[in-house]
This record gives sequence, C-alpha cells and structure tokens, in this order.
Amino acid sequence: VHPVIAILTDFGLDDTYVGVMKSVILKIHPDVDLIDLTHAIPPGDVRRGAFELWRAASYLPPGAIILGVVDPGVGTERKAIALDFGEFKAVGPDNGLFSYLLFERELHAAVRLSSAEVRLANVSGTFHGRDVFAPAAAHLARGLQLSAFGPLLTRVAKLEPPELAETSDGSIRGEIIHRDHFGNLVTSIGRIVEEGRALRLADWTGRGLSRKLARSAGRLVLPDGTQLSLGHTFADVPVGELLAYTGSTGLLEIAANGGDASAVLGLNPGTIVRLSDGER
Amino acid sequence: VHPVIAILTDFGLDDTYVGVMKSVILKIHPDVDLIDLTHAIPPGDVRRGAFELWRAASYLPPGAIILGVVDPGVGTERKAIALDFGEFKAVGPDNGLFSYLLFERELHAAVRLSSAEVRLANVSGTFHGRDVFAPAAAHLARGLQLSAFGPLLTRVAKLEPPELAETSDGSIRGEIIHRDHFGNLVTSIGRIVEEGRALRLADWTGRGLSRKLARSAGRLVLPDGTQLSLGHTFADVPVGELLAYTGSTGLLEIAANGGDASAVLGLNPGTIVRLSDGER
Amino acid sequence: VHPVIAILTDFGLDDTYVGVMKSVILKIHPDVDLIDLTHAIPPGDVRRGAFELWRAASYLPPGAIILGVVDPGVGTERKAIALDFGEFKAVGPDNGLFSYLLFERELHAAVRLSSAEVRLANVSGTFHGRDVFAPAAAHLARGLQLSAFGPLLTRVAKLEPPELAETSDGSIRGEIIHRDHFGNLVTSIGRIVEEGRALRLADWTGRGLSRKLARSAGRLVLPDGTQLSLGHTFADVPVGELLAYTGSTGLLEIAANGGDASAVLGLNPGTIVRLSDGER
Repeated sequence: VHPVIAILTDFGLDDTYVGVMKSVILKIHPDVDLIDLTHAIPPGDVRRGAFELWRAASYLPPGAIILGVVDPGVGTERKAIALDFGEFKAVGPDNGLFSYLLFERELHAAVRLSSAEVRLANVSGTFHGRDVFAPAAAHLARGLQLSAFGPLLTRVAKLEPPELAETSDGSIRGEIIHRDHFGNLVTSIGRIVEEGRALRLADWTGRGLSRKLARSAGRLVLPDGTQLSLGHTFADVPVGELLAYTGSTGLLEIAANGGDASAVLGLNPGTIVRLSDGER
Repeated sequence: VHPVIAILTDFGLDDTYVGVMKSVILKIHPDVDLIDLTHAIPPGDVRRGAFELWRAASYLPPGAIILGVVDPGVGTERKAIALDFGEFKAVGPDNGLFSYLLFERELHAAVRLSSAEVRLANVSGTFHGRDVFAPAAAHLARGLQLSAFGPLLTRVAKLEPPELAETSDGSIRGEIIHRDHFGNLVTSIGRIVEEGRALRLADWTGRGLSRKLARSAGRLVLPDGTQLSLGHTFADVPVGELLAYTGSTGLLEIAANGGDASAVLGLNPGTIVRLSDGER
Repeated sequence: VHPVIAILTDFGLDDTYVGVMKSVILKIHPDVDLIDLTHAIPPGDVRRGAFELWRAASYLPPGAIILGVVDPGVGTERKAIALDFGEFKAVGPDNGLFSYLLFERELHAAVRLSSAEVRLANVSGTFHGRDVFAPAAAHLARGLQLSAFGPLLTRVAKLEPPELAETSDGSIRGEIIHRDHFGNLVTSIGRIVEEGRALRLADWTGRGLSRKLARSAGRLVLPDGTQLSLGHTFADVPVGELLAYTGSTGLLEIAANGGDASAVLGLNPGTIVRLSDGER
C-alpha cells in the first residue's frame, strides 16, 4: 500500500506550481498516492487553510501525510515544521496552518525542518512548497523518521479559535467560519457532540457546551433577528428557502435549498450568529 | 492493473469535498486509479452532468467505475443507485444523472445502494458523495458484486432527451445542449451515424434520422436565419469567423476560429437550431 | 517505477476533455503516474504554454513524458511531433509550444507523429489531445521507441525569444513575460546565471550578459520611472510595498508583499522593464 500525500495550498491551478511540487515528490519517492485537498485557499489565508485541513483530515487513510502550504511569510524566519498526529503527519509553515487540527487532536511530536538532507539543493526565497515542504513530505512517505528532519519543537504556532461561547441568556454565540462552493455558510457551532472520533467543538473555547449543543429544538438567529429552524437536509424546506442543519463536519450550517445562502443573506465569514434554545 | 474510478461532481475545487471523497476511496481500497472527469458541473445541473458522463464514458478503460455526484436531492427519499453497463459501472443518485448513458447503452443491471456494509458508519444528511457514493465506488473497485449493495431495481430515473426531430420541410430540428470552455456550442444533432461503437443520436427521439444526418452538404441554420456551412476543423474558416462541424463526440458543433462562438452569437444551451440539406 | 506523464493544456477543467485524455492514456498503459501541470493556459496562448513547460520541466522525474496541448491549428497541416530531450520526452503540436525548452536544452531527436499505430482509430478534426497526443504519450510511457512514431524531423517550430538585451547605457532591457496566480510579475531577466543545471537566460538572445546579470546591486526600472530595489523574499519590504527579487525559476520578478503587484502597478505581460546597475 502506498502512503497518501494530501496537498493543500493557496497556489491556484493557473500556474504549474502544484504540478512542480508533485514532480518533486515523485522524483524523491515514486510509490505514493497524491490527493489534492484544494489549491483554492485565498492567497495567504492561513485561517481558511487551517479550517479545510481540519475538515479533511479525519477521512485520510492511516499513515497519510498532509502537505500544507499557505505561507505568506515564506523566506523569513518563520519555521518550517513537521508534525506527528499519530494517525497522520503534516508538513508546512509554522504560522497557524495546523491550528484547527491542534485544537482537537493530541500532538505526538513536532520538529523543525532544518536538515539539508531533506530539502532541495538550492532553496529559493519564495517557493518553499517546492524546495522544502514537498521534499519533506516525500521523505516522510519513504519512511524517514521525524527525528531525522531536525530538532524537536515544544511549541508550534496556533491561531485564536473561532468565536464560540455561552451567553447570559443561555444561548450559544458563534460565528460563520466558512462559505463553501454552493454558498452554504458553516458556523463554529457544533450542534451534536458525537461519540468516538468526536467533534468536540465546544472544546475550542474550553467551555462545557455539550449539553446545550445536543438539543435539536433550537433556532439559529442571524444578526438581523431572522430565526432559522433546524432541519436535516436541504429539501426539508421549499426550494429557495433558508434552513440551518448540522453539516457534514458536525457544525451548524446555513443553506438555501437549491440556492446560494451567502448571496441571499449577504452574509460572509466573520458574521456572529446565535443558537437559541427556541423558547424565546 | 488497477481499476479506474472516474469522478464527476458539482462540488467545485474550492472546498476539500472532492479530496475527501478520494481519501474515503483510498482508505477502503488503495489499489485504484482516480480520474477527475470534471467537478465544475453548475450546482444541481443534472442534465449537464448527464451529458458530460455520456461524452466521457466511451473512452474509459474496461472495468472502470463512474462516480457521479450531482445531487440536489441529497438526504431525501431519492434513491442511491449502482448501474452495470457491462464495460463499466456507475454509482450516484437516481435523479437522471445517467440519462444520456441510458439513451444509448443497454443496462445490464441496476441496484439500490442500501446495504449498511458499503457506506460509512455515519451518513450525513448533506454529503452522500463522501458517505454513500465514494464508499460504494471503492467497494465496486475491490470487486464486490453488485448484488451485495442492495435490491435489484427495474427502473431508474431518466431525463427527457434533448430536442431532435425531422421537420415538415425535411430539415432536422435540434438544440444547443452544451457550451464548452472555448465557447464552442455543441448541438443535439449528430451528423454522422458511426459504425461500431455507434453514436446513434437519431435514437434519442426514436426516429430514423440516420440517412438525413449522414449528408455533409447541409447548412446549420441559427434562430436569426444565419446559415453556417459545415467544415472539418476550426481553421477551415478565417480567424474570427463561424463554422459548424462534427465535433469530437460526433455531434454538430458551432465554433468561431480562434474565438468564442457563444459570446459572438449570444447563444447558449437551450437554443433551437436546424440542419437544412442546403438546397433551400 | 512508473513513468510520469505531465500534462499541460488550454482545455480548462469545466469540460471532461482532460479526464478523457487521461482515460485514453490509462486504457493504453495503466502503469503510469499522471501529473497535471496546468490546464489554465488561456485558449490558444502557445507562448504562455511554452513558458510554463519550461519552468516545470527541470523538476520532472527522469524519463518523464510531457504531454502539451495548446493547439489552435488542430486539424490543419501543422505537424504533430514527439521530442527527445534526453532527461524527458515531449509530445504535442509543432507550433512553438516547446520553444522555451528548445532555447535552453539540446534536442536529441524529433519525429513526426504519423504512424497510425500510435493514435486512436478515428481521429477527429478538433480533439487531437484525445486522438493523437494522449495515445502517443501512453505509447512512449510503455517504452515504444521514438523511431516507431514516424519520420525524423530536422526542424521544429520555435517562437521568438522574449526581449532581453544590453542597452547603450549599460542596463539590461527585458520584458514582463508572466503574471502568476498571486499577481507576481515574472520578467525575462535572469539575475543570476546558476552553475550546474544552468538557467542561462542571457543565452535567449545569444548575448553574453552573464557578468552584468550577476550583480545584485541593481534596481529594476518600470516604464513610468519607478525604481524597485532587489530583495530576497516578499517580507523584505512592508506589507503592500513593491520589490523585485530573483524568483523561484531564476528570473527577476516583481511582487507586492501580501498583495497583487499586477493590480497595484497596472502592468501585464509584454511590458518592457530595465535592470540598471543602481549607480544612475
């Protein structure tokens, strides 16, 4: 079985940057399966990259390697790192790109990518995806131990978690953290704390919100006071109408059946929303 | 030789949805080759998906599995299905997405995807591409028999075929069914009924149009009366000028040499066109 | 080890054209690794394709096959060719698409793709990517000798090299040749002539510019007189400010730290720029 390298960047697909990274990987270790997670992270949007890595990671085959490059600080003193999460490993810049994974998962080990053996001979100032991170991912895929890449780190960069808090009136305050391809809006509020491989999103702020979030009788309240009832899937409401539902990652989402909720509502990531228990 | 899974969705490439589907497949069956057909089907445009699957399918390696997800009714009572076309199999929603294949090919068997063994443990209400269809494709790739997926179906959903009919004045009425990346416009009219793996498009409406369609002396007539002569390739006319020709799938197309015919003409899918025999 | 086929086209990802090419390849030779270089070359932009192939090629694994299809003259008398560059081979139309590779590398052999054995049975007038080039790449990947594809050619098409010349006042005149996904502008001026696998860009015009280009004290002068100092990476200047630097392919580039230099400056490919030695 070949190891999987799952790639996420903000490089887009107009240039050959992603193709070159894949070429570098296959030159070092041909026996690998490459998966594109996405290359459409907006340039430099580390938070968006962190969210996307989080939603994809739990579906990766065991032993997968995440190669994440959203790296506005390329060529500066920001560290290049490799992380061991047990089920999978990750390489990328130490700028918060792995934050959402770190919110939820235990970090087994972290190293700085400093060994000259695991990068290309000439490292450019502006394309570490090609010169540093792709080679590191390939060397991980061929089984090189993390300790061979550089010194252990005791601390890696983490972004602030998204807004998620209990309010004085007993509702849950969260924020819209993602607008997807369909215009669906993903919030930071997890309605259900699942067992097993848990989406313990209440943990993002360290508060015990699980009891409240497990209620299904609530309503999602938008900034203008609009209240959306909680459904199961898009077609629970007539075409064009809005609903909230637990999305495919366990987070509350807002959609318009057959439409673009973001366009209909004029809302985008960053907007504060509130889950009320439906009694007021 | 690895089986090929050929994937078509309306998920776009901005999110990690497609990457997650691939992760799910490789986790269940790593020895598979994945091909992206396209992920740019407009959201919910089942007809466009059906056309694209049709034009791609005859080029797939033997034993390929089509994984098609254009699924506006996800989470409702619409069925999840697997189809056996002999040379290849297909999985996806039972909403007409396989119509164009069904217009032309014999269906060997169809089953409902109902076995809990061939889906993920937790099926979400909104992402059956990940939870139902990708796992089913992977289990087909590892050789599981169709009968293991669920009960046989005697009927699957089919869209109406596109407009294609003989008119009283002896010409052929068809419609523009696709605008491609270059602005070329593909019509429902097949000029040549090819032997062997036939593009028997005359069959789409059940009429015997083959004799008429085989003529190459005709002219394609647009709604405003413009008549386009039939050529072989773009450069048969000067740069910027329009022509009609038998496109790479055996259907009459309209192009502007070096330009965008759709923009030049202001025409889009749905427009009625007419193939006259050129004598009037 | 599987051979790599690296694919570059102007087909976009909205249609199934690229997926069909991959299907054709895997049907002929399944034991191959496919890399997408890019499919976003603007329709018919042979020069852009030639540049992208050049920047990607030196990172390909040994024995790779480039499959390049930017082919506005498809179906005309323009030749279909296969080229042997030693480290890798290439197939595509004979229209200049391999120019930048030819500027820099020795051509071991070139043949016309004329054998009926290495193309599909029915060759369309408009999709030679599927019918001619993908099959040829697959047959190269399975080890077929170049001589089996058709007669040797002594001459292949080449575009004019980009502007690059020494001016009377001792500075270097070049042009912007590429705008990338981030809005960074790549020029034809190579600041450093590297040893080993050399980026001998001075050779593009056959003049000995290497001494001058090796200076790092220069300034890049834009058409409006703006002078940009030469840095190492984006963050050498404050966010939003402009700099010039040697990009990841050894060419001088212009970027705005955290921004889009092309939008800020209103400049695009074709603009003449000048590298002055910084003393006037």
